[in-house]
Amino acid sequence: MHAYRDHTCADLRRDHVGQEVRLAGWVHRIRDHGGVLFVDLRDHYGITQVLCDPDSGVFAEVEKLRSEWCVRIDGVVKARDDSLVNPKLPTGEIEVYIRDVEVLGAAEELPLIVFGDQEYPEETRLRYRYLDLRREVMQRNMTLRSDVVRSIRQRMWAQDFREYQTPIITASSPEGARDFLVPSRLHPGKFYALPQAPQQFKQLIMVSGFDKYFQIAPCFRDEDPRADRSPTDFYQLDMEMSFVEQQDVFDAVAPVMAGVFEEFGGGRKVDAPESWPQIPYAEALRKYGTDKPDLRNPIEMQDVSEHFRGSGFAIFAKLLEQDGTEIRAIPAPTGGSRKFCDRMNAFAQKEGLPGMGYIFWRDKDGEAEAAGPLAKNIGPERTEAIRQQLNLGVGDAAFFLGGKPASFERVAAKARTTIGDELGLTDQDRFAFAWIVDFPMYEKDEETGTVDFSHNPFSMPQGGHEALSGDPLAVKGYQYDLACNGYELISGAIRNHRLDTMFKAFELAGYGEEEVRKRFGGMVNAFRFGAPPHGGCAAGIDRMVMLLADEQNIRQVIMFPMNQRAEDLMMGAPSEPASDQLMELRLRVMPEE
Amino acid sequence: MHAYRDHTCADLRRDHVGQEVRLAGWVHRIRDHGGVLFVDLRDHYGITQVLCDPDSGVFAEVEKLRSEWCVRIDGVVKARDDSLVNPKLPTGEIEVYIRDVEVLGAAEELPLIVFGDQEYPEETRLRYRYLDLRREVMQRNMTLRSDVVRSIRQRMWAQDFREYQTPIITASSPEGARDFLVPSRLHPGKFYALPQAPQQFKQLIMVSGFDKYFQIAPCFRDEDPRADRSPTDFYQLDMEMSFVEQQDVFDAVAPVMAGVFEEFGGGRKVDAPESWPQIPYAEALRKYGTDKPDLRNPIEMQDVSEHFRGSGFAIFAKLLEQDGTEIRAIPAPTGGSRKFCDRMNAFAQKEGLPGMGYIFWRDKDGEAEAAGPLAKNIGPERTEAIRQQLNLGVGDAAFFLGGKPASFERVAAKARTTIGDELGLTDQDRFAFAWIVDFPMYEKDEETGTVDFSHNPFSMPQGGHEALSGDPLAVKGYQYDLACNGYELISGAIRNHRLDTMFKAFELAGYGEEEVRKRFGGMVNAFRFGAPPHGGCAAGIDRMVMLLADEQNIRQVIMFPMNQRAEDLMMGAPSEPASDQLMELRLRVMPEE
Repeated sequence: MHAYRDHTCADLRRDHVGQEVRLAGWVHRIRDHGGVLFVDLRDHYGITQVLCDPDSGVFAEVEKLRSEWCVRIDGVVKARDDSLVNPKLPTGEIEVYIRDVEVLGAAEELPLIVFGDQEYPEETRLRYRYLDLRREVMQRNMTLRSDVVRSIRQRMWAQDFREYQTPIITASSPEGARDFLVPSRLHPGKFYALPQAPQQFKQLIMVSGFDKYFQIAPCFRDEDPRADRSPTDFYQLDMEMSFVEQQDVFDAVAPVMAGVFEEFGGGRKVDAPESWPQIPYAEALRKYGTDKPDLRNPIEMQDVSEHFRGSGFAIFAKLLEQDGTEIRAIPAPTGGSRKFCDRMNAFAQKEGLPGMGYIFWRDKDGEAEAAGPLAKNIGPERTEAIRQQLNLGVGDAAFFLGGKPASFERVAAKARTTIGDELGLTDQDRFAFAWIVDFPMYEKDEETGTVDFSHNPFSMPQGGHEALSGDPLAVKGYQYDLACNGYELISGAIRNHRLDTMFKAFELAGYGEEEVRKRFGGMVNAFRFGAPPHGGCAAGIDRMVMLLADEQNIRQVIMFPMNQRAEDLMMGAPSEPASDQLMELRLRVMPEE
Repeated sequence: MHAYRDHTCADLRRDHVGQEVRLAGWVHRIRDHGGVLFVDLRDHYGITQVLCDPDSGVFAEVEKLRSEWCVRIDGVVKARDDSLVNPKLPTGEIEVYIRDVEVLGAAEELPLIVFGDQEYPEETRLRYRYLDLRREVMQRNMTLRSDVVRSIRQRMWAQDFREYQTPIITASSPEGARDFLVPSRLHPGKFYALPQAPQQFKQLIMVSGFDKYFQIAPCFRDEDPRADRSPTDFYQLDMEMSFVEQQDVFDAVAPVMAGVFEEFGGGRKVDAPESWPQIPYAEALRKYGTDKPDLRNPIEMQDVSEHFRGSGFAIFAKLLEQDGTEIRAIPAPTGGSRKFCDRMNAFAQKEGLPGMGYIFWRDKDGEAEAAGPLAKNIGPERTEAIRQQLNLGVGDAAFFLGGKPASFERVAAKARTTIGDELGLTDQDRFAFAWIVDFPMYEKDEETGTVDFSHNPFSMPQGGHEALSGDPLAVKGYQYDLACNGYELISGAIRNHRLDTMFKAFELAGYGEEEVRKRFGGMVNAFRFGAPPHGGCAAGIDRMVMLLADEQNIRQVIMFPMNQRAEDLMMGAPSEPASDQLMELRLRVMPEE
């Protein structure tokens, strides 16, 4: 007989009635019903009801059991009375009469109750993560994460991608975020860095003649924590292909994403990859105010500047006299009540704008009558023109934001989301994907006037070398994102594999050849020896699992996450090093100023 | 038409004759045969012969191509003359007549030739790793590694193990080797550590109620480099199970290992897991001189002390008067020549011993006659008793080492290997596995006399708590290794999940409760709340791939390894940090003394 179990706590059915079984698990709940002790015995797989009556020789021992004690029990499977069958439990037709019990691991008083839905402060949950993880939702989230990663691998293999591991202790690779440094003992005073992403390595793998690479890659960024970002290490599906153009990358990765969302989306609708729109970056900002639009929300913003130019609404009319300004409308079908419009206006004020002008249309004798102060100011003709452009009618509303797009687009995007949610326009049971393409290579710093890369400096500019001779701000890159339900799930690019084009691209952003060689020496050297055209992308694993698990906080889908101050309360990290460790590294910690 | 290719360089067959195709790849070799240019075009998948005659409009461009240029060619597939078919090449029946060519990436003069078998210094190979990796053997090794890891994952999933990722930036976990430290920016003066192995985390995963965990886990040890050890990061198949005993772990992992070796062993014989012996640690040392014996070698050493006690061979007779000494024989069937025996004796001297006594048996009138100085010293009766104990005969030899086993076992093990190899006794076409079990929990430091853990302090002592009340040196642990062909492939244990037993075990090794709480706080706290019995093991991925690829150097199976001084010559790591980086971390590098 096995020392601990011959069945799991999810195994037993009516077929087992009469059998002597051995189970092991945790005391989930223990109840006393008329002197009989009922124990819900729980393991990773499920729950089985085991019970003990006062006649039993081990009653006194069972009586001592408390929640979360780990125990082994021997007993006989009996059928439950029909009236006591629990159809919600796979083992709900049977119960096990305890004949013997062994405490495998007792528990002290619990800082956190495992059964039920009681809420605990996150600090408690992280400090006692091993108890928190025993809860049903956490068991489900972690197995989901594991299964998602497995499915991704299987789908990549099915497309003949191979997984290759890239170094973790490596060189600093400045990519926007801060590196984590690792002091070298063999070379005191010198430091390794943990990779922010295997960007350079995956490109080097292509230069090395491998064709289709992927990796579930650990990435490290010393960033300030956020709800959807881990402050230390996180995982990406990283991939790269040789001899490809942008569409080839889409064709490779889209079925993987769609497949995973189909498999684990719990029946939510997944747009077919063929139908995923490719939206140019500029268009995405214009229509949705963001480069990660939530396409479940049907609202598209429109430029309505012409209706306000020289109108009686002085604020907008005046605004439009400045260069680069416009008036953007957010149509709100079915939002046509003063109460809703006032609430949205208040929302905009809370977001730091002076407010959001609005018009709404009510029924008057079977005709649409515009209401709201703004309509009065610009008069019926312009108001009607706006209504027609936005294709709105009785019961609808529209909101208006003005100024330089950069000044209002963030709020506009949020307002669009809120309007879609509040009016029930956004289909909650759907994963809506969109490729965002044609990202600008460069952007101008409004304050300093200098030009810098707006995204990934390693992307191939559209039009190649020649395109870099004109206005940098007009250059687009073969660079793309995949947006899903308002999140950026993937970011990628066709890479710039030509050294001359690369130096030119960096020159436009103010980096001399010397500096490029210094910062990206590994890659720059490799490109001297027959580099193939290549491109790829990276998808955030944590974010995918968050979406699938319908969680808002990344720590809900990570086994042992850091807290918001980048501390591991359970393991006590970070901590003070031993002085001989510092000595070996020839480091000294400077006193606080 | 695709911009770069419509077939890979391994695709084309006789069926394609007459087709217009587009290929991309690297110029492997280029040859001029009577004015016609023959190019071996290579990609990750294979090689296709493409050619260009002087009449072609692009002849001048093809003439410019050099080795390792990355090119795209368009051309027509033609059948080769029967006499020119290359049966070694899957594409050997055809060739492609170039119509158009485009240089995708030119190459400067090469520091390393990709085709052929020319040897280069390792520093050159690592500095230009992207060229080194284009070589056939490296492409093969890297795809092998990728396929091995894939196969491991599939086999673990098939047994219902789930992969969970554990933190990489975490707390120091002293496990014998040095930690790599990571300074914290948010908590200046404090440091994270990179995990030497996810030991504590996998145990916490079990305490968290997950049942079967595995991970292809990155591990980090700041160790001095060796041929079979990476100086920074390396990968393990890490696994752990709840509610198991030692044999359960064997039953789970053995089929995975056997399966992988069957799948990728290239036809070499793999012992069936049912036949893997379980050899107690003490017996392994006695028979093989090591806890990682190579069982392909049939030689088993034997204790022959009794034959030398009080014998005429004064050195051994005298040795045996001291406590704890013995004489060990290494039988060498078919090694019965003076020449061979002298060579082995010289080998032992090179290894730092005074020499290795020997006897060999030659034919005299159909009888075995013992020869060698040692036989003369102890006389025919004792010599014959030895021969009978070792079951040797004419043409065989035996070697003898004496003293305390610890003083000669290392050399004895090496001698056993050399003898087996030189005499052709060792079956080179086989993977021979053995579990080594019953490791002692403690060992005594010969110099200081103090008792410390001999292996993993987290193992469950055999006999549990009670066993810790007697002589520590007599306590064995539920701790095991898997040896294969002389390498340790796996190490593991049933864990000590009982807090009282853990404190007692540490106390015997001189660690107070306070210190245990401080060093292993995460785990110690968790064990207060219903810890299940659990155990597992870890297998070295790099070493498995080395064995399968028949390589002696770990850098042959790692994509971008460090050199022997823990430097990445290609990426320039480690390097001096920027002074503002150090400032943010509040660190200062101290000058060399």
